[in-house]
Amino acid sequence: MLSIKQAAIVGTGVIGNGWIVRMLAQGYDVIAADPAEGAEERMRRAVEQSWPYVEALGLAEGASKDRLTFVKDTEEAVKNADFIQENVPEVEELKQSVLQTIDKHAKPDAIIGSSTSGIMPSELQENLLHPERFVVAHPFHPVYILPLVEVVAGKQTTSENVDKAKAFYESLNMSVLLVRHEIEGHIADRLIEAIWRESLHIVNEGIATTEEVDKAFTHGAGMRYAQYGPFLTFHLAGGEGGMRHMLKQFGPALKKPWTKLEAPELTDELYDKVVSGCEHQSNGMSMSELDQNRNEFLVKLYDLVQEYWPKEQTAVKR
Amino acid sequence: MLSIKQAAIVGTGVIGNGWIVRMLAQGYDVIAADPAEGAEERMRRAVEQSWPYVEALGLAEGASKDRLTFVKDTEEAVKNADFIQENVPEVEELKQSVLQTIDKHAKPDAIIGSSTSGIMPSELQENLLHPERFVVAHPFHPVYILPLVEVVAGKQTTSENVDKAKAFYESLNMSVLLVRHEIEGHIADRLIEAIWRESLHIVNEGIATTEEVDKAFTHGAGMRYAQYGPFLTFHLAGGEGGMRHMLKQFGPALKKPWTKLEAPELTDELYDKVVSGCEHQSNGMSMSELDQNRNEFLVKLYDLVQEYWPKEQTAVKR
Repeated sequence: MLSIKQAAIVGTGVIGNGWIVRMLAQGYDVIAADPAEGAEERMRRAVEQSWPYVEALGLAEGASKDRLTFVKDTEEAVKNADFIQENVPEVEELKQSVLQTIDKHAKPDAIIGSSTSGIMPSELQENLLHPERFVVAHPFHPVYILPLVEVVAGKQTTSENVDKAKAFYESLNMSVLLVRHEIEGHIADRLIEAIWRESLHIVNEGIATTEEVDKAFTHGAGMRYAQYGPFLTFHLAGGEGGMRHMLKQFGPALKKPWTKLEAPELTDELYDKVVSGCEHQSNGMSMSELDQNRNEFLVKLYDLVQEYWPKEQTAVKR
Repeated sequence: MLSIKQAAIVGTGVIGNGWIVRMLAQGYDVIAADPAEGAEERMRRAVEQSWPYVEALGLAEGASKDRLTFVKDTEEAVKNADFIQENVPEVEELKQSVLQTIDKHAKPDAIIGSSTSGIMPSELQENLLHPERFVVAHPFHPVYILPLVEVVAGKQTTSENVDKAKAFYESLNMSVLLVRHEIEGHIADRLIEAIWRESLHIVNEGIATTEEVDKAFTHGAGMRYAQYGPFLTFHLAGGEGGMRHMLKQFGPALKKPWTKLEAPELTDELYDKVVSGCEHQSNGMSMSELDQNRNEFLVKLYDLVQEYWPKEQTAVKR
């Protein structure tokens, strides 16, 4: 059994707050630290706003948003914690320094997970006193709804500690993807980045507005991708012959100039197109309305996909 | 008002059959042609199998799968048709030649749409007698459920005929995306290709199996993409500052080596990894079980997303 009694969150931005809500919902005591002005108030508001969604998904026995403590200092937050999740901004030097503080003040056997979306764990654990208990654990926004967490071990991480981290995230009802090899961007963000770059090229060249690109995705392929990933989708597109037929028929198209291969320059013009496009397509909805709308949708979608994900993939049960 | 009485389908593969079912479901008479051995039997079976899903989505008055006729010859199929949709294999010379046959035998004012996923309309209309009534109209599998159709005009297409085509596809309850400029792969397939290439790289390098790549997508970002596209997703990830903040914070990451920029060689080894990976993750489900599973899911998802798509995008009403 896991012996995690106290979880600590370092950094209470969008991702840190997402972790807080997920951990509270699964019945953990959580202590959070963030030195920023107004951080506690923003955190409390975020917890209030997200709570209905985790209630809809189902709370663990004893789960309560009152089991959350906020402190200013990282040292204070981590000293009694059994599991610590770091979520400071994606700047390598900053992460290094905060992780060293955590490492120095935490119990030596507390597990430390970093939410980094792109930095490799071996780099982040390099200067720790106890690097063997460090993993990357990259979640997806909104963390309290989406089940995926990519867990990546660094060169110095022990497999025992990877197992402990995996067990903890599974106790949070997460779907743990153990990434076999370190790579910048792990797995999911490489796919997301590929879509992103191509989308920017399309807008940059005036082929479509941001709204049109989004529609090209959500009204077609995007509807499929909530259930089957890129491989199974193409497997199905191959008809009875599946992927075998698909690769023979469409493999050569890999060499066609169908995607732009370099990221475009982020010029002022491209910046304006992208920003104003997004504002336009929000159609007067505030960020928080968009956010709420997405959450209501995702809660229902999550119920739906659980019934329909291919069996081996339904590791996550509620 | 539209005066389409008789629709014709040329080529009854997966996409052609998808169009047939969508058109029948919306109350059109459909005549289909395909010279291949056993094509009629495969078509009739596909219509039977897909019918429950269009019933679940709602049939138009008078819609019936009995209003479908099959003929061997393209000439016979198109001669009285008001709207003709071409769906032969994605080989430019073949499409050119079939389109010339259609053009020659169709009424001069019948609209011709091609389902090509990648070829530009100006190339396909080059040798037609009446090129002004030709458009690309690229749908997404399964055509009878997914609402998106990309409509692309060629240099010789008149705007009047684009309007007619648009009205026809809208009468099929489709969400028409008028693509402003011709480009290989139109819009959606460029995004899909970008994901696909990156996925192949990840598998090729042994970072993950096909199942892991799929899970990295479906359990995280893929759940979001059924509702919000790449732009609105990042807009939301920016917190209160939206895309404006997002681009400032993550714009520089565009230059990071997070995606492989060239398509990998499709070696025998990569081919085997991808094929066997897909077969493994199907977990004993046959192609038709996978297919059925996806359809049941998509029908429910489609109901769900209609409620939650940003308002401007909900052009498609049932």
